[in-house]
Amino acid sequence: MTSSSRLYVIKIGGQVIDDEAACADFLQQFAALPGLKVLVHGGGKLATRIGERLGITSQYVQGRRITDEATLQLVTMVYGGLINRQLVARLQALGCMAIGLTGADMDLMRATKRPVKEVDYGWVGDLMAEDVRVEAFVQLFDAGQVPVLAPLTHDGQGHLLNTNADTIASCVAVALSAHYRVQLVFCFDQKGVLRRPEDPDSVIPLIRPADVPALMEEGALRDGILPKLDNAFAACRAGVEQVLIGPAHALSALSASSSGQSFGTIIRL
Amino acid sequence: MTSSSRLYVIKIGGQVIDDEAACADFLQQFAALPGLKVLVHGGGKLATRIGERLGITSQYVQGRRITDEATLQLVTMVYGGLINRQLVARLQALGCMAIGLTGADMDLMRATKRPVKEVDYGWVGDLMAEDVRVEAFVQLFDAGQVPVLAPLTHDGQGHLLNTNADTIASCVAVALSAHYRVQLVFCFDQKGVLRRPEDPDSVIPLIRPADVPALMEEGALRDGILPKLDNAFAACRAGVEQVLIGPAHALSALSASSSGQSFGTIIRL
Repeated sequence: MTSSSRLYVIKIGGQVIDDEAACADFLQQFAALPGLKVLVHGGGKLATRIGERLGITSQYVQGRRITDEATLQLVTMVYGGLINRQLVARLQALGCMAIGLTGADMDLMRATKRPVKEVDYGWVGDLMAEDVRVEAFVQLFDAGQVPVLAPLTHDGQGHLLNTNADTIASCVAVALSAHYRVQLVFCFDQKGVLRRPEDPDSVIPLIRPADVPALMEEGALRDGILPKLDNAFAACRAGVEQVLIGPAHALSALSASSSGQSFGTIIRL
Repeated sequence: MTSSSRLYVIKIGGQVIDDEAACADFLQQFAALPGLKVLVHGGGKLATRIGERLGITSQYVQGRRITDEATLQLVTMVYGGLINRQLVARLQALGCMAIGLTGADMDLMRATKRPVKEVDYGWVGDLMAEDVRVEAFVQLFDAGQVPVLAPLTHDGQGHLLNTNADTIASCVAVALSAHYRVQLVFCFDQKGVLRRPEDPDSVIPLIRPADVPALMEEGALRDGILPKLDNAFAACRAGVEQVLIGPAHALSALSASSSGQSFGTIIRL
């Protein structure tokens, strides 16, 4: 039990992974970040590109990829293999004791295959915070490891499951908040949540639930940001200290200022 | 320090991975094997098949694959991703606390990129027993983990390296013999080393260095078995208790008989 330690759960998406310069810069800042940390990565366009070359074209229903057998193999190769293993090798070169994991390793995240209703999403795993095996993460941190999580879970019956990286980041953050003071960080292609979407510098430094009605009235919070805010507040209500949304290239601001004010938008209760 | 514990380092090759029934059977026996254990896996034909579909055709020089950038990506995807991650998920379903790793994870195996002489082998790593970070393996065993190693190491400078799975198994076995009583097991498509290659039941139960001249005289030890024996004796001289060569489907014999006599051929000093 180390309830006083701060821990960062940091999620990067495809826009960082696809851009070599941005990725190198991010990894340097991530490696330099002191203290306990977890990296959760998404996929980027690589899976689509490799899938095309393999003749695997993903089907989408309501904006969600259907994970058939071939697609599961593709994401296991690209997310669980190529991207995850390369991130780990690069972090090791930067002196960061990284370890690359899926939810199957150490039984870290045992999800539920999404039930078939109107749509059969295939090999997709729905994860809940209570599915995260906290004691395994504690073991890793106590051994000085930095987990690098691919967006894959397992069903406990021998199958990997494709799981949204944002969901993994949120669930891991909530689960670990029982032991640590967790900050959940979503790296993002803007400087933060913008007051005026057309002005990239109009970052809202702090959003609390009471601020939402006025921000909506102003016309801020467009472009699908509202569900992100709802998820962030839910994570805070479940124990996460605060959620930060900001640009990958400014990650070092997290350690520079303990209030995190120079990194994007802070979301808290 | 747990110098009295027995530890198995077990290597499976493509012939097990490519055959679904053989693989399922092997994993069941591996999961049931009591005590400390490490699984090292090779590749199988899957990498070649996926490579063909991706238009990556490997070049060979003197029977060794040249690992250019595209081939390294391919083996990282297939060995480090698809095969390794699936083996772990399947072992977890069998109650085995598996964790899938390359040499980059936890800095477990930092190899040397093979120097360019007459041939440039590309991204190939030469591993030595002293390159194995023993304390990281001890941490894993103390935490109840079962490492599943893909045939990939790293150079400590951000690159993964393609490394022969037999070499990884031998180096890990030798390195860990400082802490454990290590048995190194090579699973193989025959019942053991055969006295008469045409008779699949003519298994030689035990080979010691003094037996080699007579066996050669008889005409046994053909088909490239001599280098395997040399490597096995070298491993024993470096601290491994014994080397076993036998069929994957008979793995359970290891725990049934502590002398291991019903599993293939024992090689010791």
